Amino acid sequence: MNKMVYILFLFTLLSSIVNASVNDFCVADLKLPKSNSGYPCKSPNEVTVDDFVFSGLVAKDTTNSSFGFSATVAFVDSFPGINGLGISAARLDMAEGGSFPMHSHPGGTELVMMLEGVMFFGFITSNAIYSKTLKPGDVFVIPQGQVHFALNRGVGKATAIFAFSSENPGVQVLDHLLFGNILSSDIVSQTTLLDVAQVKKLKARFGGSG
Amino acid sequence: MNKMVYILFLFTLLSSIVNASVNDFCVADLKLPKSNSGYPCKSPNEVTVDDFVFSGLVAKDTTNSSFGFSATVAFVDSFPGINGLGISAARLDMAEGGSFPMHSHPGGTELVMMLEGVMFFGFITSNAIYSKTLKPGDVFVIPQGQVHFALNRGVGKATAIFAFSSENPGVQVLDHLLFGNILSSDIVSQTTLLDVAQVKKLKARFGGSG
Amino acid sequence: MNKMVYILFLFTLLSSIVNASVNDFCVADLKLPKSNSGYPCKSPNEVTVDDFVFSGLVAKDTTNSSFGFSATVAFVDSFPGINGLGISAARLDMAEGGSFPMHSHPGGTELVMMLEGVMFFGFITSNAIYSKTLKPGDVFVIPQGQVHFALNRGVGKATAIFAFSSENPGVQVLDHLLFGNILSSDIVSQTTLLDVAQVKKLKARFGGSG
Amino acid sequence: MNKMVYILFLFTLLSSIVNASVNDFCVADLKLPKSNSGYPCKSPNEVTVDDFVFSGLVAKDTTNSSFGFSATVAFVDSFPGINGLGISAARLDMAEGGSFPMHSHPGGTELVMMLEGVMFFGFITSNAIYSKTLKPGDVFVIPQGQVHFALNRGVGKATAIFAFSSENPGVQVLDHLLFGNILSSDIVSQTTLLDVAQVKKLKARFGGSG
Amino acid sequence: MNKMVYILFLFTLLSSIVNASVNDFCVADLKLPKSNSGYPCKSPNEVTVDDFVFSGLVAKDTTNSSFGFSATVAFVDSFPGINGLGISAARLDMAEGGSFPMHSHPGGTELVMMLEGVMFFGFITSNAIYSKTLKPGDVFVIPQGQVHFALNRGVGKATAIFAFSSENPGVQVLDHLLFGNILSSDIVSQTTLLDVAQVKKLKARFGGSG
Amino acid sequence: MNKMVYILFLFTLLSSIVNASVNDFCVADLKLPKSNSGYPCKSPNEVTVDDFVFSGLVAKDTTNSSFGFSATVAFVDSFPGINGLGISAARLDMAEGGSFPMHSHPGGTELVMMLEGVMFFGFITSNAIYSKTLKPGDVFVIPQGQVHFALNRGVGKATAIFAFSSENPGVQVLDHLLFGNILSSDIVSQTTLLDVAQVKKLKARFGGSG
Repeated sequence: MNKMVYILFLFTLLSSIVNASVNDFCVADLKLPKSNSGYPCKSPNEVTVDDFVFSGLVAKDTTNSSFGFSATVAFVDSFPGINGLGISAARLDMAEGGSFPMHSHPGGTELVMMLEGVMFFGFITSNAIYSKTLKPGDVFVIPQGQVHFALNRGVGKATAIFAFSSENPGVQVLDHLLFGNILSSDIVSQTTLLDVAQVKKLKARFGGSG
Repeated sequence: MNKMVYILFLFTLLSSIVNASVNDFCVADLKLPKSNSGYPCKSPNEVTVDDFVFSGLVAKDTTNSSFGFSATVAFVDSFPGINGLGISAARLDMAEGGSFPMHSHPGGTELVMMLEGVMFFGFITSNAIYSKTLKPGDVFVIPQGQVHFALNRGVGKATAIFAFSSENPGVQVLDHLLFGNILSSDIVSQTTLLDVAQVKKLKARFGGSG
Repeated sequence: MNKMVYILFLFTLLSSIVNASVNDFCVADLKLPKSNSGYPCKSPNEVTVDDFVFSGLVAKDTTNSSFGFSATVAFVDSFPGINGLGISAARLDMAEGGSFPMHSHPGGTELVMMLEGVMFFGFITSNAIYSKTLKPGDVFVIPQGQVHFALNRGVGKATAIFAFSSENPGVQVLDHLLFGNILSSDIVSQTTLLDVAQVKKLKARFGGSG
Repeated sequence: MNKMVYILFLFTLLSSIVNASVNDFCVADLKLPKSNSGYPCKSPNEVTVDDFVFSGLVAKDTTNSSFGFSATVAFVDSFPGINGLGISAARLDMAEGGSFPMHSHPGGTELVMMLEGVMFFGFITSNAIYSKTLKPGDVFVIPQGQVHFALNRGVGKATAIFAFSSENPGVQVLDHLLFGNILSSDIVSQTTLLDVAQVKKLKARFGGSG
Repeated sequence: MNKMVYILFLFTLLSSIVNASVNDFCVADLKLPKSNSGYPCKSPNEVTVDDFVFSGLVAKDTTNSSFGFSATVAFVDSFPGINGLGISAARLDMAEGGSFPMHSHPGGTELVMMLEGVMFFGFITSNAIYSKTLKPGDVFVIPQGQVHFALNRGVGKATAIFAFSSENPGVQVLDHLLFGNILSSDIVSQTTLLDVAQVKKLKARFGGSG
Repeated sequence: MNKMVYILFLFTLLSSIVNASVNDFCVADLKLPKSNSGYPCKSPNEVTVDDFVFSGLVAKDTTNSSFGFSATVAFVDSFPGINGLGISAARLDMAEGGSFPMHSHPGGTELVMMLEGVMFFGFITSNAIYSKTLKPGDVFVIPQGQVHFALNRGVGKATAIFAFSSENPGVQVLDHLLFGNILSSDIVSQTTLLDVAQVKKLKARFGGSG
């Protein structure tokens, strides 16, 4: 076969195909309204490599307080290249003795990748509790929507990196849901069986009223 | 056209197509192990109309107690015909003054269809609370994974029928998760900021230990 | 641990996370063009609880006629809160002796929840017919796309509530498809094997021409 | 870089990865029960190239009758390699003057690719009819679940190849559904508004009773 | 039953339902920005049957050259009716002795339907190669993302029609990826182990630099 | 309300619901055949916390060679708890001067989370190349199916952790596909335009024949 002719064909073929095929990715155009499938795509001509890079999964200052934390999330609103790709990331640095409160991610599974120190992680289902002390190199999976928590029970700081099976998994911290709003303390008490005094005490702390 | 010949063709065509096309439904074979897409399908030859019927979404006896409730769920384990179809049902009868505790369904959206009486329903997101007093004929939607509750604040019994966007939406009652297991009271307290005494009190009620 | 510091952390953490996580729901902005995943989302700031409520699943007047019907659908175009959530509802009140004609929902499974009276429901697959006389408390599932019908064969009115596994399941009434358009009677006859006279008779009734 | 060392690494890496990564395909093991996601996968060791080939999309004999047809479907039950891949094929040869009756595919979209002759294709929605005379080289799409038909209105034989967006799209021929079963003629008449005599006539032709 | 009353009901019912149910299809409005679920839908009022027709899957002139090819793709950008329907088509005419270079479709499975001549097709997985000489009537499936090629090893021209399980499957020709860009020859060599001279030679042919 | 009665109700309710709701997770039963939705679920009674833990994302020995690498994948076959959850992980340690060859993951998007050192990462689409030098704290996303590579162009070792949007994303190393099999060198040459001598040279290195 005459390779040169063949290659000329390829160019012709490819130019038509390439025009028809611009779905290799869909970088979020954050200025347009979202839909159930995420943000509309930015024009490929406006996409740069920086849309695919998030530069901030680093340790933040936790020295101001003996109980310091630092948390960073790389969800789609700050990382437009993951739009529609079903993945995102986060980082948590936790000081000795610290903990991360009970919460869940209604929109995605969480994968914990321990980097430094030890943390005690657990998730609670209707039937059982699955908990483990994790050390560097351990990966722990928390299935979508399960309530979970973490504690630094080791010596010194502990650090983990997280990945989620969604570009926007959501975060529901139980305390924030129950005590950070205007729902009356009576209703919170009736639907949680917590004592009213306990509810009022936490409402004060979490900025809720009622 | 000679219709008789045409019809003979149709029979021949259809017998081959029908053999190739038995995916009109996939009734659960509950004896086989589940997978992420639900139960394997029972052989079509063994399916009867009763696989597609659940006969129990009726009021149960709530007269034994002045605080009586009755709840029935029609999820896939008791309703094999919904396997893979992304829908299920439930019914709740609630006596005057009653309430349904804070809970969520990690696997599906809930649709409330009020039949009798009035109930105050609400769901809580990280940003706001959406609540409403519902009367018969009202439909209320609780998006997947959102924590919600209900109270009968009217006079007399109240009844609602529910549909879910999954044949197995799951149910996570917060109290049951937090207080019905063996997680130590100290950890529950540390990760919820509830007082330890409050945790121990509810653990006693919900059968938890630790 | 110093809980006050901890809580301050929580506020900081939550404010950043909450900004990144506004996908708890996607209420339809009905003024914008739809896509395959439904309507674009209304801004969360404009969402109110009434977006999540449809107030009309009530009995309508069926006394004008001895053959009265009343049907109401709560699909996404009148119930923006279900956008993207894969669920919707409807209600049917049927007078004694009435029937609901052969139809299908190409976009979703139907769940029938009988409230009052009795109805004879059936769906027809390529291989079999599955039919049952339903009484209050019965739930019947009609898998997506299957042709089905209902008759009130009992004494007095019958009522059922429906849920669908889509916020917009669609409705295809066979008579309307076959006889309510401009397709020529000859073609309808040739492709259904109905007599031409029969086709013309029904075209006259259903407003079709040709 | 020392390429030989690099390559040795590659072998080691690949052998471990290849063991972990056998999801390039999932050829149907037709002997095991199906689930909502299709058939379980045959062991990769038992897969051969012939699992990915269907050899039968050829013209069949249509000379026996002046109204002869030939239809062949390549759905998953006769083509195990397409299991889970969301695609299948069929071929239709239609003699002059022939037609394909009203039908729908509840499980998938149909793509018509005309090869020879001309056919008049149409699909009917609740709002409109979309029909067109197709010539060789034309592609026509019939969205999932829409009722459609075809006629050979040209001179001589016509041939089309079809692709479906499912490995098992299903086929529902309206006549077969309405007249090929044991549902009583009275019910068919009541729910289609066809005359009872018309129903009985077609039931006789399609092998139905009642 | 009084059928006239019944039909009047049907009209009333249908007019309300039809307004609520316009999701039979979602023809692409190619002027609006895409999202992960495809293009927004054109208003149904602006849709015509020609949106569902692509008229170009015909043999193109391959006589100008003894090595001529002709390839046509019917992806969503030139065929708006397939938007969101998960299917598309293409046609390839290949002269004797020709070949189609190594490539993959990251977004969809490919179904090859041989029409004329013979082609040798193969796809390569991490574990094996699956290849076959295809003759007219053969269907061959190439699972999503697998690298594949084709050669005309027969006598005379060969033609195949393709369907894809996506309205926009994408095309990645390996040579074009590796040699048609500005990535330096050293990096290409280091990450493919090809000799630098070989890389430079092909970069020259494919219009790459570096 | 009498809380004790209420709680008794809750226990009754919960025991029935918990029996109906065991889909919080679906740990892979690796002994049963896979399907398109992953492995069947292990019985919940046999699940332990260790099913949700993978303990091996650690640096492996790279000191044996001045070009040492270490790579570990945590895909479903070695991490049964991620079955069906759409996420997995891997770790790569790369010595100074090293590189990771051109490859793609047909089944999932890759998220690179840099931990140590610097790597130059890039992926190549049909239209452009997106490449960046990544430092610790950078996250880089490679959309599903895109061909990509990495080089350690810094001083000293470099380490990254990866997450994938699938529990089994697959790995296709181009060299392995093209040169590690029995496809004849002539065909590889004809379909890649590489010189036959180059093909034979790499076939010898990658263990291919022909």
